[in-house]
Amino acid sequence: MTNEENYLAWVKDAHAMEKQAESMLEKMADRLEHYPDLKARIQQHIEETRQQQVMVQSVIDRFDTSSSTFKDTLGKLSAFGQAMGGMMADDEVVKGAISGYVFENLEIASYTSLIAAAEVVGDVEGARIFSQIREQEVAMADWSLKHLPDVTEQFLVRSAAPGVEAKK
Amino acid sequence: MTNEENYLAWVKDAHAMEKQAESMLEKMADRLEHYPDLKARIQQHIEETRQQQVMVQSVIDRFDTSSSTFKDTLGKLSAFGQAMGGMMADDEVVKGAISGYVFENLEIASYTSLIAAAEVVGDVEGARIFSQIREQEVAMADWSLKHLPDVTEQFLVRSAAPGVEAKK
Repeated sequence: MTNEENYLAWVKDAHAMEKQAESMLEKMADRLEHYPDLKARIQQHIEETRQQQVMVQSVIDRFDTSSSTFKDTLGKLSAFGQAMGGMMADDEVVKGAISGYVFENLEIASYTSLIAAAEVVGDVEGARIFSQIREQEVAMADWSLKHLPDVTEQFLVRSAAPGVEAKK
Repeated sequence: MTNEENYLAWVKDAHAMEKQAESMLEKMADRLEHYPDLKARIQQHIEETRQQQVMVQSVIDRFDTSSSTFKDTLGKLSAFGQAMGGMMADDEVVKGAISGYVFENLEIASYTSLIAAAEVVGDVEGARIFSQIREQEVAMADWSLKHLPDVTEQFLVRSAAPGVEAKK
């Protein structure tokens, strides 16, 4: 495959990944009731994720010369979504916070690889866009990891208290 | 649930996670042919992962008062393994390097949460063990992300060259 073909395929993967991110984050924010800080940060990141989709799409539009309509290949990531889901578990807020952090790191690695690929094909604008998106993912990942001990402790306190809902 | 019950369940999850890590890393190292640096670093981390299993088991042994034999609940992580797999993809070395980094971050988040839980239940020795393991996971994650641009570039060069195997 040419560099451009590999690159375009990866940018399309990134677009599908951001769709998946939006869907997972929405589900998580909708279900959270007792963890307002986590919910607010997720809602902020949903907005960022939607803007990221538009930015990634702009790279696809410049590189995709085929006339066929682009369709996200969500199948590739559905197993990931399933693994990341587990939202009905007894400890769902903890598993959810961990999953969110892990998905952010999937995005960080994907954009790190994409930036290298953009440089190989000489797509300066693409490299700039992916760097900008990666900064938002790093900020979200850092926030998530920093607040994970708090979420864990709050969950344990709620879980040990009789008649208190802990998991969401 | 009591704090101790939640804690023990999570430590058992961590043990299953390390088993899954070993299996994934072995598969990846076995298949890699043309990326010797990546292969060597993975092989080093397989050794670390085996030691980590023993360390996590020692925490389980101290906290598990039931007489039933402990069995890893690999089911929980099988969807993750599937998502992380995708090893037959055309760009498997790139996806594999990304997956490895992502799985390291699952481990980093899990141990970060476990350290907080260990402190809640007063398990000083457990907190020390999980901190030590987390350092190895952070080192592996940092290495993976740092080398991901190289892996991406090497893959693109091999993929664009006629008759050269690029994906593993």
